[in-house]
Amino acid sequence: MAPTRDVFVAVIGAGGVGKCVLSQLEGLTKRFATRPSSPKLSLIFISRSTKSLYSTEYTALPYENIAAKLDDSSQKTLSLTETIDYLAAAPAKVVFIDNTSSQAVADKYAHILSKGISIVTPNKKAFSGSYKLWQDIFTSASESGAKVYHESSVGAGLPVISTLKDLVETGDEVTRIEGIFSGTMSFLFNSFAPTEGSGGKWSSEVTKAKELGYTEPDPRDDLNGLDVARKLTILARLAGLPVESPTSFPVQSLIPKELESVASGDEFLQRLPEFDSQMEETKTAAEKEGKVVRFVGSIDVGKKEVKVGLEKFDRSHPIAALKGSDNIISFYTKRYGANPLIIRGAGAGGEVTAMGVTGDLIKVLERL
Amino acid sequence: MAPTRDVFVAVIGAGGVGKCVLSQLEGLTKRFATRPSSPKLSLIFISRSTKSLYSTEYTALPYENIAAKLDDSSQKTLSLTETIDYLAAAPAKVVFIDNTSSQAVADKYAHILSKGISIVTPNKKAFSGSYKLWQDIFTSASESGAKVYHESSVGAGLPVISTLKDLVETGDEVTRIEGIFSGTMSFLFNSFAPTEGSGGKWSSEVTKAKELGYTEPDPRDDLNGLDVARKLTILARLAGLPVESPTSFPVQSLIPKELESVASGDEFLQRLPEFDSQMEETKTAAEKEGKVVRFVGSIDVGKKEVKVGLEKFDRSHPIAALKGSDNIISFYTKRYGANPLIIRGAGAGGEVTAMGVTGDLIKVLERL
Repeated sequence: MAPTRDVFVAVIGAGGVGKCVLSQLEGLTKRFATRPSSPKLSLIFISRSTKSLYSTEYTALPYENIAAKLDDSSQKTLSLTETIDYLAAAPAKVVFIDNTSSQAVADKYAHILSKGISIVTPNKKAFSGSYKLWQDIFTSASESGAKVYHESSVGAGLPVISTLKDLVETGDEVTRIEGIFSGTMSFLFNSFAPTEGSGGKWSSEVTKAKELGYTEPDPRDDLNGLDVARKLTILARLAGLPVESPTSFPVQSLIPKELESVASGDEFLQRLPEFDSQMEETKTAAEKEGKVVRFVGSIDVGKKEVKVGLEKFDRSHPIAALKGSDNIISFYTKRYGANPLIIRGAGAGGEVTAMGVTGDLIKVLERL
Repeated sequence: MAPTRDVFVAVIGAGGVGKCVLSQLEGLTKRFATRPSSPKLSLIFISRSTKSLYSTEYTALPYENIAAKLDDSSQKTLSLTETIDYLAAAPAKVVFIDNTSSQAVADKYAHILSKGISIVTPNKKAFSGSYKLWQDIFTSASESGAKVYHESSVGAGLPVISTLKDLVETGDEVTRIEGIFSGTMSFLFNSFAPTEGSGGKWSSEVTKAKELGYTEPDPRDDLNGLDVARKLTILARLAGLPVESPTSFPVQSLIPKELESVASGDEFLQRLPEFDSQMEETKTAAEKEGKVVRFVGSIDVGKKEVKVGLEKFDRSHPIAALKGSDNIISFYTKRYGANPLIIRGAGAGGEVTAMGVTGDLIKVLERL
C-alpha cells in the first residue's frame, strides 16, 4: 500500500493539448516533490489511439521522451473498460485526465467516478451531451466523493467555469451570460468587421483564418456554431437551466445552405465567394447603425433562453473591441448590476488549455 | 465532541461588508443543510468594536436580527487574545472571518493559524504590511495545515488572486500585471478624462465623487495612492517579488503638497480648485497624443519594478475604455503572449466584497 499522500495520474490523449498537459504535469510533479505538504504525483498510465504505456506494478513512468516512447510502445493496448479496471485497482487515489474530445470516453465518466477515480478534462462532450449524461456524472461524483473538473471546456484556461460556480454557490443571481466563445469566430469577425477600417471579404477572411491555422481542417466545423453551442450548454446548465442538448436551442450556422453538403472543406472554400454578398449585407446593415457584427452566444437565465448567432454591437462595446482570437465572457448578475463581471483573453491553444487542466488537477489534489 | 463535518464560523466586524457577509453566510448555511455532502456550518461567535455575541457551549447563534442583537448585547466582550483561546478550544474546526481593516487583528493571523484556525478575509493589512508578517502568516499556515484566503483584498469579488495563483502554480511565467485597482480612481478618471467628450474640472469631479459616496470621508485617503499600493504589494508578492512594504516602491500621490497637511477633508476640497491647472495640464498633454490619463498600478516582474501613478493610454485600450467605478486587471504571461488575460468589473461594494469572502469560505470548507 502506497502512503496516503501518493496520488496516481492517468492521461489519455497525447496530441496538441495532451503534450502541453504532460509538460505542465512534469513541472508540477517536480515542484510538488520539493514541498512536504504536497502529494507525490506519479504518472502511471498514458495512452493515445492504439498505443499505451503503463506499469502493472503502478510504478511511475519517467517523463523523458514520453511521447516518443508512447509512439514506439509495443505494450498491449488496454480497452477503455480494461483501463478503468486497472485504475480502480490502484493502491492510491487516481486522477484521470482526458485530453481527447471523444464521446465514447465521456460516456464512461459516471462509471469512472463511481469507482472513486477523479476526472479532469477539457473534453466538452460529457458536459454538453444529453442532460441525462450530465446528471449521471454529477450524481456519481456526489455519491462516490470523486471530483470532476472541466475548466478548459469553456474558454480554455480563462477562469470562466470557476467564476460562474463561485457566483452561483455564494448566492448571487446570474441574470445573463454573453460573450464570444470561439477563437475562430473572434478572429474572423475582428478581421471582417473591425471597429476601425473596413475589413476584408468574408470568404477571404475565412481562407486566411484557415491558412493561419485558426480553423478546423474543414472550416465548416467552426462555422456551424456547434462548438459555441456546446460551451453555452455547459454554462447554461451551471447557471441552473436544464438545457437538454446543444441542439435544443437556436444556433445560427454561417454555412450557406447550398454548401452544407459539398464534399470537402477545400470545395467549400472555393465556392464560398459566391455567398459573400449575404455576409456583406449583414455587415453593412450594422454599419448603418454605427455598429459592428459579431458571432456571440448568450444565455438569458430569467427567460430560460439560450441562443448562438450574429448580433450587432456598438463599436465601444467590450465585445466589439476584442483583438486577435480572444474570447470574452460577460456575467451579468444581481450583485454586479449594470456593469458585468468580464473575463477576456485567449480561449484556445495548447498551453492555455493545458493550464486549465493543470489548474483543475491542483484543485482536485487539494480536495482529495 | 461534534461530528467531523461540523464547522464553526467566527465573524469579526459587522459593518458594511460584515453585514453582507452575514447575509451570504446565512444563505450558505441553509443551502448546505440540504446537502448531505456539505458540512454543517454554525456561527458561534460574532463581534464588533466593543460588542460580542457567543455561546460558551459553542452552540450556533441564530441569524435572525443578529446585527441588532449584537448592538444590544451586554455579553462580556472578549479581547482578541481571549477570542483566539475561545476558538482554539472549540470541539470542531473553526474558520475565522475578519471583516475589519484592523492592523491589530492582522498582526495575530500567524498566531491564529498556528492554532489550526483557518482565516478568510478582505482585510489587506496582513498581506500588504511588512514582508516578515507575510512570511510568518504563510509559514504558520503551512505548518499547521490551516488555510488562509483573501480574494477580496484585491478587486473585491473579482477572481484576481485565484487567477494569479493558478497562473503561477501551473507554471506560467507572469511577466507583467497592470490595471486600475481603485473604484474611486476609476470613477474619477472616467469622468475627468473620458474617452469621448471633454470631462469636468478635477476638483469638481473629486467633489462629485465624494457626494456620491465613492470616496473615503476624507478624499485624501483615496488620492494618496496607498490603497492601490497595498493591492500591488499583494499581487507582486504572489507573483514572486519579495516587496518589503507598500511604501518601498514609487507611489504617486494626487494630493498637492500644499494640501497634505490641511486640517480636514472639507478644507481640502475647498482649496483643491487652486490646483486644477496641474491636472488639466496632464490631461491636455495626453490628449495631444490622442490618449487619456489613468491612475494605474503596474508590476514588471522581470525588472522587479512596482509602481503606482498616472499613465497615458490610447483611447481604444481596455484600461481607457473602463466604465463607472469598475476595476480592470491585465495579466501578461508567457502563455498568453501579446494579448493579456483580463478581468474587469466592480472592485468595491459590500455585496461583491462579501462574495469574495463567501467564495473563499467555500474553498476552505472543501479543503478542510
